[in-house]
Amino acid sequence: MPERKFTVKPSLTTRGLSPENQETPLEYLQTDAMNNYQFFRRNHFDYPSLNQANYRLLFGGLIKRPLSLSLQDLSRFPAKTLKVALECAGNKRGHFEPKTYGEQWGKGAISQGYWRGVPLAHILDLTGFSSHAAEVVVKGYDHGVRKGSEKNETYARSLPLEKALHLDTIIAFEYNGQPLSYKHGYPLRLIVPGWYAMASVKWVRQISVIGTSFKGAFQTNDYMYYPSQETDEGAFPVTELNVNSTIQTPLDMEVLDGSRHCIRGIAWTGKGMITRVEISLDNGESWLDADFHPPASSYEWVSWQYVWNPGKSGEYSILSRATDSIGRTQVRKAFWNRKGYGYNAMDHVRVFVY
Amino acid sequence: MPERKFTVKPSLTTRGLSPENQETPLEYLQTDAMNNYQFFRRNHFDYPSLNQANYRLLFGGLIKRPLSLSLQDLSRFPAKTLKVALECAGNKRGHFEPKTYGEQWGKGAISQGYWRGVPLAHILDLTGFSSHAAEVVVKGYDHGVRKGSEKNETYARSLPLEKALHLDTIIAFEYNGQPLSYKHGYPLRLIVPGWYAMASVKWVRQISVIGTSFKGAFQTNDYMYYPSQETDEGAFPVTELNVNSTIQTPLDMEVLDGSRHCIRGIAWTGKGMITRVEISLDNGESWLDADFHPPASSYEWVSWQYVWNPGKSGEYSILSRATDSIGRTQVRKAFWNRKGYGYNAMDHVRVFVY
Repeated sequence: MPERKFTVKPSLTTRGLSPENQETPLEYLQTDAMNNYQFFRRNHFDYPSLNQANYRLLFGGLIKRPLSLSLQDLSRFPAKTLKVALECAGNKRGHFEPKTYGEQWGKGAISQGYWRGVPLAHILDLTGFSSHAAEVVVKGYDHGVRKGSEKNETYARSLPLEKALHLDTIIAFEYNGQPLSYKHGYPLRLIVPGWYAMASVKWVRQISVIGTSFKGAFQTNDYMYYPSQETDEGAFPVTELNVNSTIQTPLDMEVLDGSRHCIRGIAWTGKGMITRVEISLDNGESWLDADFHPPASSYEWVSWQYVWNPGKSGEYSILSRATDSIGRTQVRKAFWNRKGYGYNAMDHVRVFVY
Repeated sequence: MPERKFTVKPSLTTRGLSPENQETPLEYLQTDAMNNYQFFRRNHFDYPSLNQANYRLLFGGLIKRPLSLSLQDLSRFPAKTLKVALECAGNKRGHFEPKTYGEQWGKGAISQGYWRGVPLAHILDLTGFSSHAAEVVVKGYDHGVRKGSEKNETYARSLPLEKALHLDTIIAFEYNGQPLSYKHGYPLRLIVPGWYAMASVKWVRQISVIGTSFKGAFQTNDYMYYPSQETDEGAFPVTELNVNSTIQTPLDMEVLDGSRHCIRGIAWTGKGMITRVEISLDNGESWLDADFHPPASSYEWVSWQYVWNPGKSGEYSILSRATDSIGRTQVRKAFWNRKGYGYNAMDHVRVFVY
C-alpha cells in the first residue's frame, strides 16, 4: 500500500520558466525569516554558469587601489546581518488597470529574511576612490538577450555614491545563516535595503566606480517609470520602495461564514517606518486601525491583523492602507506607468459572508 | 560548497490550503498522461481518514442483492483503461466578468491521464436493481462543514441511471498504472468521462440506487448554473463539459521578439470530438486553422499549435476557438452564472511584439 500523505503546503506560483520567475504564495509571507525555497524567484536571464573554484570579486574604475577578493578575503572584513524584505519592482503588476506588459505578478513578488554581508563602504574605503566618483556600477554574471532588444547584455545596475556608501548596503554571502543558494545569487549578492530588488544584483562579478551616470539597459530602458503610454516623456528611475500593504487573508472573492475572522497582512515602506495600518470594511467609507508590533528594523515588513465580527451577511469590500513615518500613505488608484512598476494602491479584497 | 542546482520547473498554483485547492500550471498540460504531482487538486473538505485495512465498497438502495466488495473482490471484475481529462466545473472562474465568489481558478483546473477501473455497470449487473431505479448515488469518505452551510455534510453526487450504466463510467483503482494517490481518491474513485469533475467522486464509500431525484447539497445548491445574480430562477445542473480551448503559449501580456512563434494550446469537449480549432491574430476579425492530431478517444484533449510569424511589431490580441462534432463552438463571452461554473469563452491573450 502506498504511504499515507496528507501534507498540504503551498507552492510557488509560476509566472515564467525561461527565465525562471516564480512568486511566493501569500501563506508564506510571515513575520519571521522565510525559508529559501519560499523566496520568490525573479530572473532576467537563464541562471549563469560561474567558476566557483576560482571565484574572485573584482573592483575597478575610479578607485585608487584596484582590488580582487576571494571569498576568503571577503570573510576577513567585518560583516553585519540585516533583516531585509526584497520586493520586485513589478510586484502586483497584474493589478494595474489598464494592464501593462510583462510578467503578471500577483502580490507575492516580495520575501524577507536575514542577509549577512560586508558593507560595500568598507571595501571602497580600502580601495579609495577619485573625487570625480559619482556612481558605483555592480555587474552580475547573468547575461543574455534582453526582452525588447537584439543584443547580448549583462545584468548591471548602478547606485549613487551616497547609497553605495550607506553602511547597510552590503555584499551578502549568507541568507538565514547559510551560504546563498545559487538561485538567489551564490556566492555574492548585493543587498540594497529600501530599494526595489532590481538593485540587489545577484552573482556579483565586478564593482566599478564611475564618474558619470550609468546608461545600462536595466537602468535607462527597464526599471524606469514611464507615465505615458505613447511617449517616454516624464520618465524617472525606479529606486526606493513605495509605502505598501497586502491583505493575506481573507482571499479575494472568498466565501466566509459569519463567525469571527482575522483579517491579516503585511505592510512595508522603503523610507522611515510603518506607523499606521488601517482597514476599511465598507469600501473606504470608514477606517479602523489594525494592530501590529513596531518592526525591529525599517527594512522588514510588519505583520498586522484586525479581528472582525461581520455581524450580518452580505458582500463586503475590504481595503488596507498603510502610512509611513515620512507621511506617505497608500491611495486608491496606483500611479499607472507603462512598464508596470511600483504598484502600491490600497489592497482590496471582496468577500461574501453567509 | 552547496550543490549546484539549476532545475527550473513549474509548481502547482495555490488557490487555497484548507481544504487544499491547487491548480496545474499551463506548462504541464501536455498531450501525454500527466504525472500525479502535476494533477490539479480540488477538495471540498480536508482529506478524509479511512480504514484502509478493512476497506470495503458498499452497494445499497434499490438493488436486488446487497453487496460489499474488498479491493481484492473488485480486482476480479473485468477492468478497462481510459484516457480521460478531468476538468473542475470552476476552471477559469477567475475569468468571469463580473467576478463570481469562490476559488479564483485560472486555466489550470484541468488535467488528464490514464484511469483504470471496473465499469460500474458490471457491478450493478451483478446486484441487479429495481425497475423503480432512477439514479445512482455515489458517496465519498470526505465530509465537513460546507461553505454556505452550518451542518456537517458528506460529499455525494448522483448520476442518472443511463450515465451510471455507461460502460465508460468506471470505479477506478489506478492512475497511470499505479494505485491512486490519497490526494486523488485512493483507494477508489468514480470516473465519469465527459462530465465536469465534481461527478468523479473520490474516496468512494458507498454506492446506492435510488428511485427519486437526489437532493444532496453538492447537487441542488452547489454545481448548479444560476443565471441570475438575485434569484435562483432558471437554475439547472452542471453536467457535461462545454466545448473549450486554452492557449498555453504565449502568456497573457507577454513581450515577444519578432521571430517565429508557436502558439500552442489544448481543446476539449464533453460530447463528440473536437473537429476544429481556430486562431485569430486580430481580435476576432479573421480566423486561421490550428493544427492538431485527432484524439484517440473523445475523453482526452487535443494539443494544437499554430506557427506564427508576426512580421510587424505592435500589440496583438490572440483568440482561440474550438468546435466539436456536435456543432458546438466557443463564443466570445462566457455564459455568466452566479457560482461561476462552466466558463468556456474563447481564450484570449494579448502580446506585444517588439
